This record gives sequence, structure tokens and C-alpha cells, in this order.
Amino acid sequence: MGGDHGPEVVVPGVAKTLERHPEIRFLLFGLEESCAPVIARYPALREASTFIPCEVAVRMDDKPSQALRQGRYKSSMWRAIDAVKTGDADVCVSAGNTGALMAMSKFCLRTMANIERPAIAAIWPTLRGESIVLDVGATVGADAQLLIDFTMMGAAMARALFEVEKPTVGLLNIGVEEIKGQEEVKEAGRLIREAAMPSFEYYGFVEGDDLGKGTVDVVVTEGFVGNVALKTAEGTARQIAQYLRAAMSRTLLARIGYILAKGAFDRLREKMDPGKVNGGVFLGLNGIVIKSHGGADIEGFAAAVDVGYDMARNGLKAKIEQDLNLYHKRRSAIALASDDVSSN
Amino acid sequence: MGGDHGPEVVVPGVAKTLERHPEIRFLLFGLEESCAPVIARYPALREASTFIPCEVAVRMDDKPSQALRQGRYKSSMWRAIDAVKTGDADVCVSAGNTGALMAMSKFCLRTMANIERPAIAAIWPTLRGESIVLDVGATVGADAQLLIDFTMMGAAMARALFEVEKPTVGLLNIGVEEIKGQEEVKEAGRLIREAAMPSFEYYGFVEGDDLGKGTVDVVVTEGFVGNVALKTAEGTARQIAQYLRAAMSRTLLARIGYILAKGAFDRLREKMDPGKVNGGVFLGLNGIVIKSHGGADIEGFAAAVDVGYDMARNGLKAKIEQDLNLYHKRRSAIALASDDVSSN
Repeated sequence: MGGDHGPEVVVPGVAKTLERHPEIRFLLFGLEESCAPVIARYPALREASTFIPCEVAVRMDDKPSQALRQGRYKSSMWRAIDAVKTGDADVCVSAGNTGALMAMSKFCLRTMANIERPAIAAIWPTLRGESIVLDVGATVGADAQLLIDFTMMGAAMARALFEVEKPTVGLLNIGVEEIKGQEEVKEAGRLIREAAMPSFEYYGFVEGDDLGKGTVDVVVTEGFVGNVALKTAEGTARQIAQYLRAAMSRTLLARIGYILAKGAFDRLREKMDPGKVNGGVFLGLNGIVIKSHGGADIEGFAAAVDVGYDMARNGLKAKIEQDLNLYHKRRSAIALASDDVSSN
Repeated sequence: MGGDHGPEVVVPGVAKTLERHPEIRFLLFGLEESCAPVIARYPALREASTFIPCEVAVRMDDKPSQALRQGRYKSSMWRAIDAVKTGDADVCVSAGNTGALMAMSKFCLRTMANIERPAIAAIWPTLRGESIVLDVGATVGADAQLLIDFTMMGAAMARALFEVEKPTVGLLNIGVEEIKGQEEVKEAGRLIREAAMPSFEYYGFVEGDDLGKGTVDVVVTEGFVGNVALKTAEGTARQIAQYLRAAMSRTLLARIGYILAKGAFDRLREKMDPGKVNGGVFLGLNGIVIKSHGGADIEGFAAAVDVGYDMARNGLKAKIEQDLNLYHKRRSAIALASDDVSSN
């Protein structure tokens, strides 16, 4: 039901993913009168899915507390999340209200053992392909331990999404020489290096311009900074697109040039299109929930469903659990070793 | 002496500003052997300037503490800042080591009364023109009072630079509904609104994508976030420029289109060029110091000198002092009024 266009985008988006992955089965949750007519237009999807009519739909402008009060147990959002909890679904994908989706996901699925707070991971287009950036807004403020949790979860997600064995991970920091960055970031860096995890390669600190370069596979930061960085990049891309449009329409020669280079411009637009790499992944919960951009088009929503499929198929949750356990074992060993040293 | 190209860029940059503003007089500080031959090539500048040979030049990779130890009193950087302190100069412009420049500026000029820590303000190109964004890296972490100081200083700079009477000011925050943002930001917003300053219009919260839109004249944030946002935007602009180059050279048709639209591309490049709006302004010190981007070209360095000239000519320091005094008067009045209320 969610997103700017509701079932008119979500249903065709799911149908598109089904074309690519005919082995997937879908549970579709929503208001019957809005969804049934759209689903009817996609016979293959109707065949491969079960529609579960719901009484309530969370609105895009509901406050999270309001959504929880009015929509718990009966809204399409809640029931889709709950299907992950009961095991009926491997992953939940929604284009709905982010705050409500996170609140309901936390309430219904609870955070994983050893994880204090969940994070939202974004897939970031880079010059080298794609990177994962987290947290982009689930939490404000993070101590070193939370940054370490984010690191483990982001690295596990990179292994599930990019199918690389040992992704590179960097901590976002700032480069003005006078200041060596946030204390929390420095402390997290020291602890991560010390643990020498086999599941990823710790690169060290990265700066804002490393995001677009794709210097590392995973960039870890606190949610306020991550959210500002994400929106700043989106804003800059839109700003340049607008400059480009204005420049290309100003003179006749530029317009002719534009027509000749149209194929190239289309490829550029595709590269710059946030819809192509859509899907914020909620990490740290007992189940996988994917947040599609509310403004995503059909292709964009399908991309978010694809991400969900990759996460489920490649065992994201098990990978996170495995890494967290290993990390805590190593930390205990390091702590014991240093106790031995100090007691001698 | 500073920047990636030293006097080869700085001296011609100053000469360019002199062409635009023949009324300016310059003091040039540097090593004689590097500077004198370059200055000799610009007779008008030689006429309008005094060269002060110095023994030491701070290196781009010196640590601030090292620069202070080795360069205090005798380096070209120190002596240029000191000229502002003694009143020989109205403003100091440097393309050198940012950390060293800030450390020396603080040491030599000291922070203004009522200001706890200085900030670096960047001039940000937007769809509506230019905005001021601060702090972009002088401090890490900020309480509400520091954000209020930044607000007063940024608004005064906007009045000096854009020559508007009542600039608009926004506090950078995040928009995920669940979280209403940082406590410090909310508290600062409340206090600023309450003070109802006549010298600027408080707009409220803005998000990362408002930076490129130019929603407000001044965006206030803490230095870690501001630095990440600035570098993320620069990185995104470079990333898109590289996509564009690749797209335009891929097919013959695209290359022909590029040639026809070249004028338009040149205008686009100019819009995207950070050198065009170069010059980070150190705010909150007893004197004006401008930091040019180290990688700036001649036009870029001239832009930084132009900014310095505008700041000095339009009385930036007096404007800041005036606003701070008024703000503290208003806060005292509000505090007194609420004491009256609570004692009744």
C-alpha cells in the first residue's frame, strides 16, 4: 500500500522481479479494493502469489506511535512484517512510511541478540559499482560499540549482496588535520583492527568524497551523519541534472548536440537514477525488512524486491549472527589475554 | 606559499583580484626565492603590494602543533595572520595547510568575546545562487549554544557577502519521522526562534538535499556533519562529471553531440567548479582569515581573495559583534521575564 503511488507501482514492480526470478513466491498484503484490480492485470503474479486482504493501511504521514496504535496486528504493514516473524515469508519489502516501518519492525521482530539498536543500510552507486552505507537514519548518535555492530552487519550484508568473500570496510571520518575526528570513531577503529576479523578487511578511515569513489565496499557511520550524507548526495545529483538540462536547452547548437548524444544522456540518467539501486535494508532485527524509496517507480520497486531476494537467498541473518559471535569471542580472548598480562 | 601550486597560483590570483579591485593594497608573505620572480612578472601587482620575505614556510603536511612550534613568529603564514592582528591588514588569505592556519589563527588572533570556538564557513553553490554552510570542520561536536553562535556568525557573514538585509537561516537536521533529530539541534532551534532576532529570519530545520536547492541563505551544523556533507557533495559532483565524460565518449554520435554542445558543457563545468565559489571563512576570531582550497587554480584563488575583500569592506567583524551583543541582551531579557513569571 505504501509509497507515493501505492499498488500501482508496487504490484507491477513485484511482477517485474517475478519475471527475473520465477522461483519466488509472494505474499501481498493490502486493502482489497486497491490491490485486487491491479493484481488481476498480472496473471503470472496472481499465480505466484497469495493476496491477504487487510483492514488498515498505514499512511505515509502517520507518526510511528500513531501507526503502532492504529495499525498493530491488522495493518498491511504489520502483517507483512509478522509474516517474516512467523516464517511464512523470508523477507518483507515495503515502500511505506519509514518511521512506522522501523517502529513496527522493532516491535514485531525485536533486535538480534548482541545488537543494541538496528540500522538502515543504503546501497550507494559509486564509480566502482556499489557500496553499502550505514546507518542512514535509524539512530542518532553512536558509541564505539554501536559502530562496531554496524561494521559487522554491513560486512555481512556486503557478502550477501555483492557475493564477495572479504569485503573492505571503512569508518567515515573527517580530514581536517587539526582534529583527528570523533573519539567514538577512533575507538571503534582501534577495536575493529585489534579483532582482525576474517570476514572483512578493515580499511581504516574514509571521508565524504570516498563515498562516490567507492573506496570501500562498506562505509560505517552514525545515523545523523549518514542521513545528511545520503540526502546531500541526492540533492547534489538533482542539482547537477538541473544545471545540465538548463545548459542543454539554452542554444540551438546545444539542443542539436543533445539530440545526437541522447543515448549517452539516457545512460547517464540511468547511472544517476537512485531508483536503480533502491532498497534500504533494516539490519539487526530478527528478520529481514527492506524499505523501498517512497518515490520509486516500477523498476525502482523491483530493485528493492531484488535486494530482498538476494538478502534472503544468501542467508544475511545467519552471516550477521556468525560474525557477531566470532567478534565477541575474539574480544573476550583479547580481554583475557590483556588481563593475563596485567595480572602478571 | 600554500596550496598545491604555491606562488605560481597565489600571485597571479592576487593579480587577477587587483584587476577587478584596483583600490586594494596587498601585503605578500613568502620565501623570497620562490615569490620574487613570480611577482616580478606582474608589474601592476608589484606596484600595489609590499613583499615581506619570510624565513619559513609551513608545509601542507605539517601537523598543526609542528607548524606552531617551527613557524610561530617567523613563518609566512604566521606573519600574514599577525598583520591582521596589528591592523596592517584587514584580512588574511591563505591556500595553505588548514589545520595549521586554524591553529595559528586561534593562537594569534584569539576567539571573540562571547564565542567559545571558531567555525569554518563554506560558500556552497546552489540552484538559487550561493549559500553559506558552517561549520565544515573546525570543531567536532556542538552543544546548542555553539550552534547558536554559528547561527549569529553565519547570518552576519551572509549580510556581508550577499548584501541582503535579512538572510534566512536553517539548522541542518534529519527527516526520518521516527527520530526528531539531535537534541542539541532542537534546543538551538527553540532558543533561536525565541530570540526573534531582527538581523535574520529563522527558517527552521533543513535536510541534506536543501543544501543544493539553496532553501536558505545560511545552513548551520556541527563540524563533523558539515565536513562530511561538503566532501560528499564534492565527491558526487566529481562522480557525475566522470559518468558524463564516459557517456559522451562512448559512441561517435555522442562525441559529435558533445562537440556541438560544447559551449553548454563549458557553462555546466563552470557551474560545477568548486573553484568558482572558493574561500572558507574562519569565523569567531578577532580578525578575518580566509582559507582557499589548496587545489584552487588562479581563478579559484582570486575568488577567495574577493571573498576576503567583501568581508573586510562590509564590516563582517562588527556585524558579528553587533548580533552577538543583541542576542545576549535578548536572552537575558527572556530569562528575566521568565524569572518574573515563575516568582509570581
